[in-house]
Amino acid sequence: MNSDNLMDLALSKGREALEAQEVPVGCIFSIGSEIIAESRNTVNETRNPTRHAEINCIDQVLKYCNDNNVEPLTIFKDIRVTVTVEPCIMCAQALNNVGVAEVIYGCVNDRFGGKTVFDVSKVNDKFYRLEGDVMASNAMDLLKRFYEGTNPSAPKPKIKKNKEVK
Amino acid sequence: MNSDNLMDLALSKGREALEAQEVPVGCIFSIGSEIIAESRNTVNETRNPTRHAEINCIDQVLKYCNDNNVEPLTIFKDIRVTVTVEPCIMCAQALNNVGVAEVIYGCVNDRFGGKTVFDVSKVNDKFYRLEGDVMASNAMDLLKRFYEGTNPSAPKPKIKKNKEVK
Repeated sequence: MNSDNLMDLALSKGREALEAQEVPVGCIFSIGSEIIAESRNTVNETRNPTRHAEINCIDQVLKYCNDNNVEPLTIFKDIRVTVTVEPCIMCAQALNNVGVAEVIYGCVNDRFGGKTVFDVSKVNDKFYRLEGDVMASNAMDLLKRFYEGTNPSAPKPKIKKNKEVK
Repeated sequence: MNSDNLMDLALSKGREALEAQEVPVGCIFSIGSEIIAESRNTVNETRNPTRHAEINCIDQVLKYCNDNNVEPLTIFKDIRVTVTVEPCIMCAQALNNVGVAEVIYGCVNDRFGGKTVFDVSKVNDKFYRLEGDVMASNAMDLLKRFYEGTNPSAPKPKIKKNKEVK
């Protein structure tokens, strides 16, 4: 499964979030062509502001490992994360703590991005490979629809077209 | 209960972590003199690298709110967090996401601190009040004991005496 296929799946989770009136961010964890975890933002429905899509996926993997007595690090080290929006500072550090192999994201997160606002990789001895701007406009469209739908008079969200991330 | 009493409790949770061979960080959530949540680092025992003391306390409050149908924001807005070590970037953002009132910490976290390494408050419209250097040497002693115990030939941890945080 290539980056675009995985991002299509992540976007479908993002649309699910939009329908549930959550900030529309979707996320897929995969190893090769196998989907390991898939989730979306569930902050409102859980009333838990830390339940970002990435954190939900991390917990799915950890539950699987716990149920099957598998050492999490042996799984996480091969995981590719595909997420519609650049992970925030909290999620970027959490993803690195669990030791994922790479993170592919759609559009940048100008307010909280763990690369754009502060490059979290700088404070870690090792860090996952990071790539952005994969189907960024689709991810942005979801965010725009959410913010326009929530408050018709709201200012446009500060989401810029993604730049290539080294 | 004053800052030192609360930090004494946090340090006792930190010692519990040390005994369990976890990085010794303890944390207390309180409102006035009432303890709302108390926890410690459980990364190793849960095999979950995001289970820092602060995240465990957040989840205790959210479980209480969920079980009792209480809106979390109405609780978090009054919570004082007392934690033996400056919260890392991940925890600093998570604590701000849930909207705690203030965070009092012991010693600085020179590697991952959400103030020292990168000031997470700068990217948030509102942020909790932050105060450090409360019984910092006790918190440092716990960390030193942990790192020396793990590996007698390990270099000294990069934990400096705390500076006042504005």
